[in-house]
Amino acid sequence: MINQTYKAMLGNKSVIRELSEFATARGKEIGYENVFDYTLGNPSVPVPQIYQDVLIRLVQEDDGSLHGYAPTLGLPTVKQQIADSLRKRFGIPYEAKHIFPTAGAGAALAHAYRAVGTPGQEIVLVAPFFSEYPAYIAPTGLTVRIVEPDFEHFQIRFDRLEEIINEKTAAILLNSPNNPTGTVYTEETLKKLADLLHRKAEEYGHHIFIISDEPYREISFDGKTVPYTASFYEDTLTCYSLSKSMSAPGDRIGYVAVNPACEDADIMGPIMGQISRGIGHNCPTGIVTRAMGELTEVTADLSVYETNMNLLYDTFRDIGFELVRPGGTFYMMPKALEDDAVAFCKKALAYDLVFVPGDGFCAPGYFRVAYCVQTEKVERSLPVLRKFCKEVYGK
Amino acid sequence: MINQTYKAMLGNKSVIRELSEFATARGKEIGYENVFDYTLGNPSVPVPQIYQDVLIRLVQEDDGSLHGYAPTLGLPTVKQQIADSLRKRFGIPYEAKHIFPTAGAGAALAHAYRAVGTPGQEIVLVAPFFSEYPAYIAPTGLTVRIVEPDFEHFQIRFDRLEEIINEKTAAILLNSPNNPTGTVYTEETLKKLADLLHRKAEEYGHHIFIISDEPYREISFDGKTVPYTASFYEDTLTCYSLSKSMSAPGDRIGYVAVNPACEDADIMGPIMGQISRGIGHNCPTGIVTRAMGELTEVTADLSVYETNMNLLYDTFRDIGFELVRPGGTFYMMPKALEDDAVAFCKKALAYDLVFVPGDGFCAPGYFRVAYCVQTEKVERSLPVLRKFCKEVYGK
Repeated sequence: MINQTYKAMLGNKSVIRELSEFATARGKEIGYENVFDYTLGNPSVPVPQIYQDVLIRLVQEDDGSLHGYAPTLGLPTVKQQIADSLRKRFGIPYEAKHIFPTAGAGAALAHAYRAVGTPGQEIVLVAPFFSEYPAYIAPTGLTVRIVEPDFEHFQIRFDRLEEIINEKTAAILLNSPNNPTGTVYTEETLKKLADLLHRKAEEYGHHIFIISDEPYREISFDGKTVPYTASFYEDTLTCYSLSKSMSAPGDRIGYVAVNPACEDADIMGPIMGQISRGIGHNCPTGIVTRAMGELTEVTADLSVYETNMNLLYDTFRDIGFELVRPGGTFYMMPKALEDDAVAFCKKALAYDLVFVPGDGFCAPGYFRVAYCVQTEKVERSLPVLRKFCKEVYGK
Repeated sequence: MINQTYKAMLGNKSVIRELSEFATARGKEIGYENVFDYTLGNPSVPVPQIYQDVLIRLVQEDDGSLHGYAPTLGLPTVKQQIADSLRKRFGIPYEAKHIFPTAGAGAALAHAYRAVGTPGQEIVLVAPFFSEYPAYIAPTGLTVRIVEPDFEHFQIRFDRLEEIINEKTAAILLNSPNNPTGTVYTEETLKKLADLLHRKAEEYGHHIFIISDEPYREISFDGKTVPYTASFYEDTLTCYSLSKSMSAPGDRIGYVAVNPACEDADIMGPIMGQISRGIGHNCPTGIVTRAMGELTEVTADLSVYETNMNLLYDTFRDIGFELVRPGGTFYMMPKALEDDAVAFCKKALAYDLVFVPGDGFCAPGYFRVAYCVQTEKVERSLPVLRKFCKEVYGK
């Protein structure tokens, strides 16, 4: 008999998906170029040519091992390449054994939750957060606790975090640069967080982990570097993916990097190997795993996202929106012009402007703008945005 | 704090892995060509050239979509290609919606267990079975029930199966051709099984599923075709992989095919989409998914496995082993020459013959021979095998 829990979930359609489907359907009527679809976080820039070249070369030079099984804990060469790159870049003494290749950041997170949490424990999310997290965590047996948004800066409300952490807290899940706000957690935030977690870990007599979800690490603005969470807190598992940085989300490739200073660092890889068996994973596809190892210093041309961000940010602010300036990603999260962001987004649809209300991200009253679209389209959307705000809200 | 359940699992080293490591270490001493390593089910033939060619062409002809996200339920074109091929081949009216691409058979099974089983229910395994199954199933909340081996034919002990099935039975997991025995379940066996399951389903008032794990479907001997389980029983989820048929286990690509006549067939795909979220899956890597779709009628040259089987089967029988003749795969499972197969396999090590005792496969007293090795090596191993049996067991 089909599993009734999952069957019941079929009813809960993703709002993002629904709006995206609206945009696609509307595109069929008026031409997709005329629909200002800001719904999906799907990279709009091509993969770099060198990535394509490496894939072709790997196949051409296959010595018979390219399509073979990898060792349970991943290809040693690739683990070493990633460790070397992270060590050089962030000054943390990663070794190959600290790197666990996975099929993207989703798989990295699936392993990380289970590695540092035991059913009955809690995991803390900082709102606004990626709307899929609760569904990802549900079958782990961990309970989700939510720190409400700091709407002023989209940093962390430490007053609430301190109240929420308790003896059952296994980990806090961070995502910086952040989906949906585009915010980068500052060094100050990360230091303060590390202090709090150290204090609480001592109080409760067990380690509390940070799971740091960093697929947007390479998309930062204003020439700044994103502070690396693991540099501030030893008990950190860093989850990474090439989905955004290489513009290759369909390739499903990424890794967990275990801070060598974290609790049980040397057995965290084998632990994740055990977890793989139970959730039907195995090493990620060999060809893209090898490409990841060779291209640790390469990204797609990500500059378009900053161009788009500036165009939109300036216009939103000029119209009078409350809005925190993003430090990275291809998202921003302005406050809607009425309390009900769902109503706001519905009214925008009449102008073929498709935004996602913040409710699913635990940010009611706000909406997410995913600007991984052609700059030309962003430019065409701006007068439409002004017209919408003027006609509907008198702004 | 690290998850203690998984930490405890680290102690339980896989016997197969340990023996394989012995073989590798011994290979460093005397040359790996002199170690008769029959431990691992790692395909020994190369992928077909056309598979390599397709991968290169896919990259060369990328229109910008090759590395992009697939829809949640998989690439429609590929789903259609697989449905067409299965429909043509087995006469079952599969449509695209019945195909759910996954990262290999391991991932296919992880989705299938969860789709048709609810925590608290039971899943039946037919011994001997692939030693990883219990670890795969453990986190699903399903309880494993085991039908003891039919040592005479390695078919199914229906007397025991009938006793074991009860109102909590969600599914029976079949693997034909079988790892570790190489046995193919006959049409007679499958008909009898279907009759029994129909009767029991009616008795308990709910459907009972077959999860049919078929990575070895294309490796069959004596010119025979493997009976297709779903042709005999409507409530069947077929789990497939290119690991063995295409000799590409590192590529992690396969699918679940949902019998269109099964319960809730049309929502089984969306159900598995929901399951993916919770276990960190997403669509499998796009490039190998597309290659799978294009090459549904292609396999590697699998004939070497039959050559190896015949050499080993004839020799084992000639020496006097009890042994069921395999119908497919690259495994066989003779009875050891003493009651304790672990002791038998240890004694064989002195002759650099590396076999896996059957205990982990729920077949104590037997041992598995994985003959996915070079034929030349098989030939060299035969006199050594005779010498071992003569010197140690007087055979």
